[in-house]
Amino acid sequence: MSIAYLNGQFLPIEEAKVPALDRGFLFGDGVYEVVPVYAGKLFRFRQHIERLENSLRSIRLPLEQTVQSWADMCHQLIECNQLSNATIYLQITRGAYPERNHDFPSNPTPTIFAMISPLPEIQPQPGEQDLQGISAITAEDIRWQRCDIKAITLLANCLLKQQALECGANDTILVRNGVALEATSSNLFMVRDGVIITPPLSEHLLSGVTRDFVLWLAEQHGILTEQRSVPEHELLQADEIWLTSSTKEIRPVTRLNDVIIGNGTAGPVWRQMYGHYQQLKAQLYRGEIDSNSEGEIAL
Amino acid sequence: MSIAYLNGQFLPIEEAKVPALDRGFLFGDGVYEVVPVYAGKLFRFRQHIERLENSLRSIRLPLEQTVQSWADMCHQLIECNQLSNATIYLQITRGAYPERNHDFPSNPTPTIFAMISPLPEIQPQPGEQDLQGISAITAEDIRWQRCDIKAITLLANCLLKQQALECGANDTILVRNGVALEATSSNLFMVRDGVIITPPLSEHLLSGVTRDFVLWLAEQHGILTEQRSVPEHELLQADEIWLTSSTKEIRPVTRLNDVIIGNGTAGPVWRQMYGHYQQLKAQLYRGEIDSNSEGEIAL
Repeated sequence: MSIAYLNGQFLPIEEAKVPALDRGFLFGDGVYEVVPVYAGKLFRFRQHIERLENSLRSIRLPLEQTVQSWADMCHQLIECNQLSNATIYLQITRGAYPERNHDFPSNPTPTIFAMISPLPEIQPQPGEQDLQGISAITAEDIRWQRCDIKAITLLANCLLKQQALECGANDTILVRNGVALEATSSNLFMVRDGVIITPPLSEHLLSGVTRDFVLWLAEQHGILTEQRSVPEHELLQADEIWLTSSTKEIRPVTRLNDVIIGNGTAGPVWRQMYGHYQQLKAQLYRGEIDSNSEGEIAL
Repeated sequence: MSIAYLNGQFLPIEEAKVPALDRGFLFGDGVYEVVPVYAGKLFRFRQHIERLENSLRSIRLPLEQTVQSWADMCHQLIECNQLSNATIYLQITRGAYPERNHDFPSNPTPTIFAMISPLPEIQPQPGEQDLQGISAITAEDIRWQRCDIKAITLLANCLLKQQALECGANDTILVRNGVALEATSSNLFMVRDGVIITPPLSEHLLSGVTRDFVLWLAEQHGILTEQRSVPEHELLQADEIWLTSSTKEIRPVTRLNDVIIGNGTAGPVWRQMYGHYQQLKAQLYRGEIDSNSEGEIAL
């Protein structure tokens, strides 16, 4: 049975219940993070917590909590559940109050919830499914204007993901004013002529921790990267398309709107990057580097 | 102590708790309604339930429940709480599942939650505060593209309302491409040269039950109405501005972006409409008409 965390308590996930009056339940008034854990270590934790703090600031929810105290909670969750490869889901809402009222409470008592799920062991070589990639469709981005905030108001994302599933595809790449931005829960990359291209940060997409990591990893290995606007029609002519997230890592899209991308399997630049990504995780496992990479100290 | 309803049970609201894994809490994956109760009668209930059914259809959440069974539950809530003037808040989410996954579950078990709050007694004459009206600001509408769905993903609405409060105003009127649409939890009306004008229905605003009722009531009393686009700059020149919702009924906005609207107090058309609205409620109280007005049978 999985052990979760709720407002200071560790308890079986089935017992983790929140008041129906919680603003997370009534208004979607909260933010979240998903942090990967490799070999028992929190991966790029500081970046996740910095983004969490940004999200909290953006929704004007003050919360004094150090990176270390978040890390302590996460490590306890890892220990309770005896998992060494996992993702930790962390959600903070503005809490529960006696009345439903859009106005922000003046002294909020946030609700803090976290849970953990196992991840598969490291795979030095991509499996057949990895190489096959996934299929995606494009659709008009109907989400709000602040997709840079990692908010729990995800109904649009769910509807857009479902749209793909009902078309027999795996995910939806969102397009606003003819420009491709990201997928329903991952960032977007394309490769053209050996250059890795991803849309620039804006209020219309999430500043992905894995997005940054992929850019950094590419640069470490001398692969050219570019952050620029990606028109939808150009995406269909890409040599490779990838979606990245903390749980998906780098996932090749090999079919978009029924157009075969590249040769219909994971492309050469993806294969390189897959190798680099897994190698780095292996170094982590062996304790050769710390979890925060980029020279930062692990927590 | 207030008695709420949760998945078939009536219980003290403090005990109404939902799993943290509920998709309402994790994704804002749900819809809601707010139904007024006057003299123990559900007001325009059929319209509220029809809209609820539309919302459910739009988010692809199938739920077989008759209008009568919704009414029975609401009447029980009224009785348990011994309230005759109240609003009932009704929320349905896609339910709780063992894993957090954007994909819709194939056989959903929705969560149904309802609570009730007292409303003040009928006031045949407007009070001083009613006449004074409220102040509003205009702001860019940052919400999603499906504001016709009464969804619980309301973080944008909360942020936009808060923006008004922090400017010393009471609410925010939302503008998209230069056109005013509605406020953060109410529909928008303006009066020019004796004509009541409201933006036409679209995916950018809610089909308000009170909006429809105000249009119907005006027509009943020979006041001209028009449904057309309202440019922001025209709103500032309105003779009167109103916000309408089931709980607010008709509320005059007498100051917009620090511009005095009309003579700075509730205008003459508002006074007329206030009278008509309260008169109709009084007829309801006296049992002279049924609760669904427009000739419909009350539930």
